Amino acid sequence: MSRVAPVSGFPEWAPEERIVERHVIETLRETFALHGYAEIETRAIEPLERLRGDSDAAKEIYALRRVLADPDEGDSGLGLHFDLTVPFARYVEEFSGRLTFPFRRYQIQKVWRGERPQEGRFREFYQADIDIVGRSGELPPHFESEVAVVMARALASLPIPSVRMHVNSRDFVEFFYRMLNVVDVNAALRSVDKLGKIGIEGVSAELRVQGVGDSAIEAIEVFSRSDPRDEKQMAWLLGSAGFSGFLGDFEDRRKALIALVDAINDAVPGVARADLGIARGLDYYTGVVYETFIEGHEDLGSICSGGRYDSLVAGGGYPGVGMSVGVSRLVSRLLSAGLVEATRSVPSAVLVAVVDEESRAASNAVARALRERGIPCEVAPTAAKFGKQIQHADRRGIPFVWFPGDPHEVKDIRSGDQAPADPETWEPPADDIWPRVERR
Amino acid sequence: MSRVAPVSGFPEWAPEERIVERHVIETLRETFALHGYAEIETRAIEPLERLRGDSDAAKEIYALRRVLADPDEGDSGLGLHFDLTVPFARYVEEFSGRLTFPFRRYQIQKVWRGERPQEGRFREFYQADIDIVGRSGELPPHFESEVAVVMARALASLPIPSVRMHVNSRDFVEFFYRMLNVVDVNAALRSVDKLGKIGIEGVSAELRVQGVGDSAIEAIEVFSRSDPRDEKQMAWLLGSAGFSGFLGDFEDRRKALIALVDAINDAVPGVARADLGIARGLDYYTGVVYETFIEGHEDLGSICSGGRYDSLVAGGGYPGVGMSVGVSRLVSRLLSAGLVEATRSVPSAVLVAVVDEESRAASNAVARALRERGIPCEVAPTAAKFGKQIQHADRRGIPFVWFPGDPHEVKDIRSGDQAPADPETWEPPADDIWPRVERR
Repeated sequence: MSRVAPVSGFPEWAPEERIVERHVIETLRETFALHGYAEIETRAIEPLERLRGDSDAAKEIYALRRVLADPDEGDSGLGLHFDLTVPFARYVEEFSGRLTFPFRRYQIQKVWRGERPQEGRFREFYQADIDIVGRSGELPPHFESEVAVVMARALASLPIPSVRMHVNSRDFVEFFYRMLNVVDVNAALRSVDKLGKIGIEGVSAELRVQGVGDSAIEAIEVFSRSDPRDEKQMAWLLGSAGFSGFLGDFEDRRKALIALVDAINDAVPGVARADLGIARGLDYYTGVVYETFIEGHEDLGSICSGGRYDSLVAGGGYPGVGMSVGVSRLVSRLLSAGLVEATRSVPSAVLVAVVDEESRAASNAVARALRERGIPCEVAPTAAKFGKQIQHADRRGIPFVWFPGDPHEVKDIRSGDQAPADPETWEPPADDIWPRVERR
Repeated sequence: MSRVAPVSGFPEWAPEERIVERHVIETLRETFALHGYAEIETRAIEPLERLRGDSDAAKEIYALRRVLADPDEGDSGLGLHFDLTVPFARYVEEFSGRLTFPFRRYQIQKVWRGERPQEGRFREFYQADIDIVGRSGELPPHFESEVAVVMARALASLPIPSVRMHVNSRDFVEFFYRMLNVVDVNAALRSVDKLGKIGIEGVSAELRVQGVGDSAIEAIEVFSRSDPRDEKQMAWLLGSAGFSGFLGDFEDRRKALIALVDAINDAVPGVARADLGIARGLDYYTGVVYETFIEGHEDLGSICSGGRYDSLVAGGGYPGVGMSVGVSRLVSRLLSAGLVEATRSVPSAVLVAVVDEESRAASNAVARALRERGIPCEVAPTAAKFGKQIQHADRRGIPFVWFPGDPHEVKDIRSGDQAPADPETWEPPADDIWPRVERR
């Protein structure tokens, strides 16, 4: 038998920590549902060829093999999904006849990545995704602000510091890069996307290798740090690209980005800002892109990213826009930094004491009456001395101990107050009914 | 790219079906939590050697292999868990310093079984488990009725026909088999456990191979069909085993079983019955065992089984009692038999119409006011003709359409009633706020 130990990259939580994780998940879920997003859940596996995608690019996938397989059965051909986008795309195609478009969906599930064990990264973690997809044609731009607003509201409901959502338009960036005569715009975008990791010098070096000239590199650098509202700066950038005056196509794209940021901030004041330096390396995105950072925890990287795409599926069709939260990374930080805690480790608000084993049925009857009114409780495991039963509650953070009798009495073990109570009518304070998650 | 198709054994649901699955899961969860059970969630994987167990018996396990592994890295040594008991046992050992005992836990997660694809059985499915475990020594018998009562209440809260819980005592059965001089009591129990599958003749044949004599086989058959309250029958069985009069040890076990059934029925009238014919093949169980059937759907087999064990972990210690519901099998039957349906396919109770794109902000403001009072809603995707917007709501089962204006008006599209309404105060009927799951 293997020794009992954590497996690196597969986080698990103690019961009071799981309460925090569930709180985060339920808060996201409720916000998504209030905005009309329907939940789907996909199987954990997809065919390996689908996970690898058309590009056949190497991916960190766990493939499945049946331990009992016949020697001639071969591999199962299945692998664990590494995100929720690949399965969502497959689901939309497979269920398209049963869906109504535009289709708003949320999906909160675990994903797996076959990272090298020693890298200390999560190999199993929760993601929470929202997307709106149309069936074909153009998706109206108001959906771009919608997903950002829904996510901003969801994140604002969590017990975390404020978030800042950075918004960019790949379309705008690409247009400017083309004005600079950059040949491989996607390659340049992928390099600029690494700004946070490899710094301006690393990006410059990569761009130089791609054949981008020094003045264009400078323009790209300045552009990526510019505020699109700064018309002077914008004029300078146009000039550096050899244009004088404002081009209509450039202006359309610049103003669309500003309008999007304004629309998000109208709904959730101050959350969004334009950031011409974020690019999201994925070619998949074709329009707006988002990244989200927690104030004071920027080292976590973007906790919620996404963007707009022309086509969810490889064959074309299903334009959409979506965002994805890295739930486990967020929860892990909340717990490790001690930002939040659950008020107790069990659901029970009340421990019903047992006077002696002969009268256990009377204690069960009290518990039942409380539960019928929605008050979670448990009955003491043994008819130990009351001091020991109170200790049992205290060690779990259960706030109330009920003493059956005539009259019944209930003790708030935090204050020590004890008073007569009726199992049919007594109510704890609303805040005490279920465990709460509180910021520390 | 692989074609888009279901993978046999990996069930998925349309959004309105997922509402049913979530309803089942949330109903179980709420009942468990009301009874003080704490939630845990374990990683999806365990070391393969732990999944195989001490017996090294062949199991239907999916092993994981990193697609990008270095040739010399070898297998990951990890496999997907096939139930929630193996991970729970490991979790209790690993977290024992952070848990309080007796520890009540519930766990609702997917499990995977590497069945042969052609067998048409689930290879990915939800289980919902509850267990109470002590740290060492004896667990008081009142926990045996507790888990059964919690499960009976949870199942009674679901939109399914009545359930019947069959209760047996392996201890009692084993004692009787030993009175009959059966040599391999566990083998005999495993055979009797197949009564439903291979019939009385199949069981007899197996017992004969095990060297059980004809009169003992007859006694075993009669015993398995007997009511332990039938004292005449019990006396006959004792006689057939060569004893006259009632033995104290036999009587203690018989009465303990009757007392347990009575305790369960005191809390949930009529749900439990003693059934000396169920055995649960697993050697793991050492005392009471449970199986649960849905009336009119006995062909599904037991939907909720469990029992008492002396030791959760291989090394000894952690005595407990638990039960497990096969959630996916249950949900699959509910859906395929058309027993239930969700009242709509999206969370939205209200579609806020859009008069024209210029006034979309006014529609957004209405939606926001409704959401702030907990009413899920969505805004129409385009400013189409109102007839088309009403159709948009109708196709999703959204009951209300809101027309912004002065005054605002809201239409119940089921009745056609339309009336002025204020976004700050209007309330739909409480039953319409969220999708409901109804028995058909």
